[in-house]
Amino acid sequence: MKPNDLPAPWTLARRANRMNPSVIREILKVTERPGIISFAGGLPSPATFPVKEFAAASAQVLANDGPGALQYAASEGFGPLRERVAAQLPWTVDPAQVLITTGSQQGLDLVAKVLIDAGSRILVETPTYLGALQAFTPMEPEVVGVGSDSEGLALDDFEAKAAGARFLYLLPNFQNPTGRTMSEERRAALSKTAARLGVPIIEDNPYGDLWFDQPPPAPLTARNPEGCIYLGSFSKVLAPGLRLGFLVAPPALYPKLLQAKQAADLHSPSFNQRMAAQVVEGDFLDRHVPRIRALYRSQRDAMLAALDREMAGLDVQWNSPDGGMFLWARLPRGMNAVTLLPKAVDLGVAFVPGAAFYAGGENDPEALRTLRLSFVTATVEQIDRGIAALAKAIRQAAGGGA
Amino acid sequence: MKPNDLPAPWTLARRANRMNPSVIREILKVTERPGIISFAGGLPSPATFPVKEFAAASAQVLANDGPGALQYAASEGFGPLRERVAAQLPWTVDPAQVLITTGSQQGLDLVAKVLIDAGSRILVETPTYLGALQAFTPMEPEVVGVGSDSEGLALDDFEAKAAGARFLYLLPNFQNPTGRTMSEERRAALSKTAARLGVPIIEDNPYGDLWFDQPPPAPLTARNPEGCIYLGSFSKVLAPGLRLGFLVAPPALYPKLLQAKQAADLHSPSFNQRMAAQVVEGDFLDRHVPRIRALYRSQRDAMLAALDREMAGLDVQWNSPDGGMFLWARLPRGMNAVTLLPKAVDLGVAFVPGAAFYAGGENDPEALRTLRLSFVTATVEQIDRGIAALAKAIRQAAGGGA
Repeated sequence: MKPNDLPAPWTLARRANRMNPSVIREILKVTERPGIISFAGGLPSPATFPVKEFAAASAQVLANDGPGALQYAASEGFGPLRERVAAQLPWTVDPAQVLITTGSQQGLDLVAKVLIDAGSRILVETPTYLGALQAFTPMEPEVVGVGSDSEGLALDDFEAKAAGARFLYLLPNFQNPTGRTMSEERRAALSKTAARLGVPIIEDNPYGDLWFDQPPPAPLTARNPEGCIYLGSFSKVLAPGLRLGFLVAPPALYPKLLQAKQAADLHSPSFNQRMAAQVVEGDFLDRHVPRIRALYRSQRDAMLAALDREMAGLDVQWNSPDGGMFLWARLPRGMNAVTLLPKAVDLGVAFVPGAAFYAGGENDPEALRTLRLSFVTATVEQIDRGIAALAKAIRQAAGGGA
Repeated sequence: MKPNDLPAPWTLARRANRMNPSVIREILKVTERPGIISFAGGLPSPATFPVKEFAAASAQVLANDGPGALQYAASEGFGPLRERVAAQLPWTVDPAQVLITTGSQQGLDLVAKVLIDAGSRILVETPTYLGALQAFTPMEPEVVGVGSDSEGLALDDFEAKAAGARFLYLLPNFQNPTGRTMSEERRAALSKTAARLGVPIIEDNPYGDLWFDQPPPAPLTARNPEGCIYLGSFSKVLAPGLRLGFLVAPPALYPKLLQAKQAADLHSPSFNQRMAAQVVEGDFLDRHVPRIRALYRSQRDAMLAALDREMAGLDVQWNSPDGGMFLWARLPRGMNAVTLLPKAVDLGVAFVPGAAFYAGGENDPEALRTLRLSFVTATVEQIDRGIAALAKAIRQAAGGGA
């Protein structure tokens, strides 16, 4: 019974037995070999990083208030950045409800600490963001996957599984991993159902600004702010390397999330917060984000065209995301994306097997057919070559299995 | 039984009921009123921040490798920074055992997650660093305070309380809050005793470089690396606003701490890690840290002189720290530092009541007599005025109590 697989004098906490290395990060290590075209990582295109603006902001912040930028600071975050976050959200948000986090990943860690007891039932989409599972798991919840269709979460399955749930976690816009967006009708119905059933919603929205043709429908939090925690990020519209995200929580919950934040890392870097506030001042994002959208749309289009061209006759299916960074594909029935991966890497292309994103459903043959393809890190030329290599790997696997 | 003091639909995790706002941060809010001389905060002197060097490093990092500095990165940390940390520690450390953390506060959070189950017995010094208690508490340990004397932890009390302890947490150099340093004899004996009893040690060393006359004795980790986790920080030798610290863990434990780190915030900011690596390159710290030591020594001397001068006849006691940022004082028997604080603030000076640092001993009259005075944030002139005001407050309290 003693949860200890460590040499003396160490005893591991029970929760640590449930921690696992990120499948994606392990895959990324393999695929970092030179010459591999990677559709695996969720890495924003470095071409979108505003390096020049950061350099100017960094110089200005240090020149104008070096000591402030380098000193300890309030756990809530830098005032002007909290105000800016509140002002740009599409519902009325008091800056006092905004907590700056060390990436939105930290928001998930804080939510887990404040809301999950050992054995607590929590609901997630199927499939769902792997990093959320990693953040929730150490608090020892019972993770229950809720089914979904092309419009998003399946409401009947949600209702069937809702009893006693501490929260429902979801990512309604250009979801990681599927690229799927929840429809307006589904959002309206889900918001009402969750309120009726008394299930809080944790709404994760790192990709919402990266729409291609039109903005996604209004957030679930905008429809019921008292029943939701909203997580956002600067990683996709500025750069991930600053590790800046935020959460918006109802007044009743905010103090506990803040105390968890204090205990976790005191505060997010003062310097980074001031740099970000400086860069987004004025209308920078109004000029910058459309450029990211245009780039990612062109890369999505390139991937769709390459899939049409290379997968002809292969019985592979894929969707056409309206924004974000990922596209979701299904191999022919009976084929396994996990065993396909090493063969694909041998041919010079990498992806993430979709099974990694299913809570507990790793042996489901439907899950094993799926794969996530990021279209934002590779260039159009690499997309063309990478999809051709992937088609070749699938053709070989189909031939081998026949 | 339902641990819920929140409005519907929220249910709070049991651990959240044990989270409390930092007493110090609440005090700091009061003392941030203009005109208050604060000995309360643990804020490094902004005069020591290498603003110019950070500006140069920031420009260089963005010019040479902007995309790398702004992209997602490995959870372990930036290679050259890990190598530098390993190389400068006074025992043989493999860079592979170094994990870069978002401040050393995050190291405490990771340790708590990986080693504490609900009900686990953990041992801390009395008094101890408040932030450690805040980081450990959410994992619901039984926190047991171990007595101490002027040389550090009391070994007989440690031995009496060691059975079943998951770890002993301590801060051997220029401790927060007492400023005390553990003697060589005590370290040697503690290291042997802990190994014999099978109790791991979590050694927190944020202040070790800030010695005034001679370096402190070798770390406990250097004596038994397999039985210790070592936590360090860049906050005191560079600047806290970057939120950069590190831990060194034995190979058996490192993977679990790394997985906890991934789940907590993916990685510490790539940009900050590269800036710090750039600034410390070469012999910068060999020139910079002695300047911090000289400044803090002069401020400690000013506070000691002011105490000698102003507290004459008041039966107040204090120590003379050999380094670090804090001095520890005792009010006359029967006087209460918690009730003294608002009176002192009225007279223009602030401190932290020592009772805040006692695990569960807040009602002990000996703890209530104590206070922590930081000598590094205020100028010498402010120290003179602040200690005079503190003496006046004590004199009034003593008169009022007579």
